[in-house]
Amino acid sequence: MEQLKVSTKSNPNSVAGAMAGVLRQHGIVEVQVVGAGALNQAIKAVAIARGYVAAGGIDLVCVPTFADIEIDGERRTAIRLVIEDRLRRPIDASVVLPDEIIDVDALEALVAVDPTTN
Amino acid sequence: MEQLKVSTKSNPNSVAGAMAGVLRQHGIVEVQVVGAGALNQAIKAVAIARGYVAAGGIDLVCVPTFADIEIDGERRTAIRLVIEDRLRRPIDASVVLPDEIIDVDALEALVAVDPTTN
Repeated sequence: MEQLKVSTKSNPNSVAGAMAGVLRQHGIVEVQVVGAGALNQAIKAVAIARGYVAAGGIDLVCVPTFADIEIDGERRTAIRLVIEDRLRRPIDASVVLPDEIIDVDALEALVAVDPTTN
Repeated sequence: MEQLKVSTKSNPNSVAGAMAGVLRQHGIVEVQVVGAGALNQAIKAVAIARGYVAAGGIDLVCVPTFADIEIDGERRTAIRLVIEDRLRRPIDASVVLPDEIIDVDALEALVAVDPTTN
């Protein structure tokens, strides 16, 4: 599963665009965050991305779980969000990408920041 | 729809217990938060509540949307989370309430704090 890392400095609109791009390619996207600020940006992005896919009849839902991760040798608890259609219908054709998205990989790089900066 | 208000000081375990109680009664629960700290507690609570209902085959999902609210005459943007079974199956019999929950109303009162304290 494609994983986006979102930090407290990530722009929710950019993250939503990257989510839409990954959803179009894979039908599912996972976001991992450490800390309240990063989670806030990620959840805002999900709310925005819902709008990108709603026109295609897709009902984007989000499933949060805990994840134990290691950052610089220290154990931390991250939140992992799995984002997909409620009924796991194919999403590819129904995702309206925002105008500014040309290269999804470039956008993914924008939001895939080092989790230690969260 | 039953709405829980969660603040940055809410205990995620207590909120998860209240969610489980409302899910058992109504099959759906809505949480409203203002601010990153409150959202963090609410999402942790959803992750915990997933465990309470998983044994009954319920797959709890969360749908975040923006909500314009007014606090003391000022307009603020809240995040609203709708939490329910992925397939909207009846939940009542399958929710395992944590041992400490005797009175759901009392628990709801615990988490239904004034949103101005978020």
